[in-house]
Amino acid sequence: MIVCELISVGTELLLGEITNTNARFLAEQMAAMGIAVERQCTVGDNPARLREDFLAAWERSGIVILTGGLGPTADDITKEVICEALGLTLEADAFQMGRIEAFFRQRGLPMGESNRKQAMVPAGCVVLPNENGTAPGCWIQKDGKCAALLPGPPREMQPLFLSELKPRLAAYASGVIVSHHLRTIGLGESRMAELAQDYLDLANPTVAPYAKDAESYLRVSAAAPTQAEAEALCRPILKKLKEILGEAAYSVDKSLEQTVIDLLRASKQTVALAESCTGGGIAARLTDVPGASDVFGWGVVSYSNDCKQALLGVQGATLARHGAVSAECAREMAQGILTRSGADFGLAVTGIAGPGSDGTAKEVGLIYLAVADRNVVLARKLETGRNDREYNRIAAAKQALALLRELLLTQQP
Amino acid sequence: MIVCELISVGTELLLGEITNTNARFLAEQMAAMGIAVERQCTVGDNPARLREDFLAAWERSGIVILTGGLGPTADDITKEVICEALGLTLEADAFQMGRIEAFFRQRGLPMGESNRKQAMVPAGCVVLPNENGTAPGCWIQKDGKCAALLPGPPREMQPLFLSELKPRLAAYASGVIVSHHLRTIGLGESRMAELAQDYLDLANPTVAPYAKDAESYLRVSAAAPTQAEAEALCRPILKKLKEILGEAAYSVDKSLEQTVIDLLRASKQTVALAESCTGGGIAARLTDVPGASDVFGWGVVSYSNDCKQALLGVQGATLARHGAVSAECAREMAQGILTRSGADFGLAVTGIAGPGSDGTAKEVGLIYLAVADRNVVLARKLETGRNDREYNRIAAAKQALALLRELLLTQQP
Repeated sequence: MIVCELISVGTELLLGEITNTNARFLAEQMAAMGIAVERQCTVGDNPARLREDFLAAWERSGIVILTGGLGPTADDITKEVICEALGLTLEADAFQMGRIEAFFRQRGLPMGESNRKQAMVPAGCVVLPNENGTAPGCWIQKDGKCAALLPGPPREMQPLFLSELKPRLAAYASGVIVSHHLRTIGLGESRMAELAQDYLDLANPTVAPYAKDAESYLRVSAAAPTQAEAEALCRPILKKLKEILGEAAYSVDKSLEQTVIDLLRASKQTVALAESCTGGGIAARLTDVPGASDVFGWGVVSYSNDCKQALLGVQGATLARHGAVSAECAREMAQGILTRSGADFGLAVTGIAGPGSDGTAKEVGLIYLAVADRNVVLARKLETGRNDREYNRIAAAKQALALLRELLLTQQP
Repeated sequence: MIVCELISVGTELLLGEITNTNARFLAEQMAAMGIAVERQCTVGDNPARLREDFLAAWERSGIVILTGGLGPTADDITKEVICEALGLTLEADAFQMGRIEAFFRQRGLPMGESNRKQAMVPAGCVVLPNENGTAPGCWIQKDGKCAALLPGPPREMQPLFLSELKPRLAAYASGVIVSHHLRTIGLGESRMAELAQDYLDLANPTVAPYAKDAESYLRVSAAAPTQAEAEALCRPILKKLKEILGEAAYSVDKSLEQTVIDLLRASKQTVALAESCTGGGIAARLTDVPGASDVFGWGVVSYSNDCKQALLGVQGATLARHGAVSAECAREMAQGILTRSGADFGLAVTGIAGPGSDGTAKEVGLIYLAVADRNVVLARKLETGRNDREYNRIAAAKQALALLRELLLTQQP
């Protein structure tokens, strides 16, 4: 098995200003390809230390992947240091120079001399075009080994890795590991793990529970010589786990937003939103998915009571008697947006995200959800018991989508 | 200045199963104490590699902090390897043995022989009690250097570091490092760096540019014996950089959302939102900030044209002539939400986030922003040049908030 080392370059990492998510992403990708990552290290924007660590990694392993330090400024040193260490020269790449010039022209921004530095590449390397920024990646092969230089920002690095580097690394892979996530909502991690208990000691595939942002997953991972064989190992286990977990298991690998959008699209229906404590968070989640406009056209963020009355038709008497955080208000919000929009479903959330309460005796973490169609209005109370604004907003958004999913499932033939 | 290295131990990190948040936490803590972290590395549960990396770090630096590998199972090897490398023996600690026995008794769990391993500590070390788990930390002093062993789970490691290790490290701290971020929007990283060029070679404070999610920052970091002295070093540099960068520098350390909310609150004004391509993302950003309800009450996510007409009063003729992605539509959206809501400002966004276009010849990444108050309506065109839905949505949301800020600043006395 070929051995790989990862080097993250950037003083901001050593100062603890950002979390190193690149190391995790790359480690996960390499593991899935059956390439062993034996070490990961982080160095600052310091030529001597980067040189020392790179040469040690190059000596020990067959593949070295570096991220960061490809930017336009003087403290971006990765290309220069690696070239010097490997005895290569830097040369201008005409294609990259043209791309960088076009990038600035399109944005109407002045192009600084420093940006030309980004078009310099190690002589003889394969230039990996970066569709999401000005720093291209580089793929260097020398003495039967290879080094890859990737940009530091994750939204540039990840697509560049997947489209350009991964196919080149595949030649070094010794098998595959396939992982799937059976995603559940509403059960909680411990209950999910109890139900799946008989499967948690399997060797291949392995089954492991974990919790993330108000959902719980079971990760099913299989190792095999080929993708097809690994998939064949996972399939029967996923099927059994789905049976055991029932309706709470809403998808394999697919997000809750995508799951709800697919159910709506398949039945040619639409949803409109009326959000209070989630403050646009449900709309933002749905519209993160390309093509959301097929099933979503109307949203109201009624953060104030006058907006709830004016745009959603919530009754003043309801607000006076029950308050804005009540099942009654949630129902009227859901019916209001349903009627105004002409959508097939109206989905509403009102609650107290915290840190402060709403001036009543109601507890932080108290949330009411409601979903309406032309026949019924369902309301549900959620008490997270947490004074954590971010968690409460995420949990409210996800539980609202889960409630809509439940109503959609009752329509299934 | 004393130099420190961090070593994270755990195969799960090299497989990419978890993100290394310990490295960031420790790096941030050390930076704040004025102890320079020069390297961080991650190794698996492999004795030979851990030994090699530990000895290299011990040779190079005065402080080595290791996290992970203190658990009860056979693959937890950190104590054994470090003892062997430093020529120390492992011995049972009677107090720890009692604590571990009590831990299991209290929970009514059977205590395995393997758990006794957790009460073994390097001879002569200071045992650091772990209030949140069974693995104690260790503080080893030898040859004028020190090594600390901490448990891997963050919720055990962090409190143990703060209560037991940080006070001991304070003796090695040569002062404090204070960092501030001068945040800019609209300039781009290279242009910002060029304007600030005269300051990028300073030694103390240092000034370093970086880019994040459609914004650019200058990090100003000063080292000094005390917090007050470090702040005093940063202050004049931040002031000069603000003058040089002008209005584009919107805050020191404060998010754009918070900056806009503070400006609105100070002038007792409110904003209402009309969002198309950002799909609720601006509302979600504003309402992430506790107390946003002081300045925000009304939002409409008009993802469809009929919603734009019905809730915002956009003219059918405007949509027919210019399309939904046009300056004209953005203006009418901003004026529409201003009028409906009675807020002081109406802020609107319409654009093409991608990956597909909108059926016209318009390019993905084309976005129109508009802000209205009772006197003026300003519209602005933004072309990101990227086919990256997530980036386009973030850039549109941030540029919209920046546009509102510009109008707010014109009101300043």
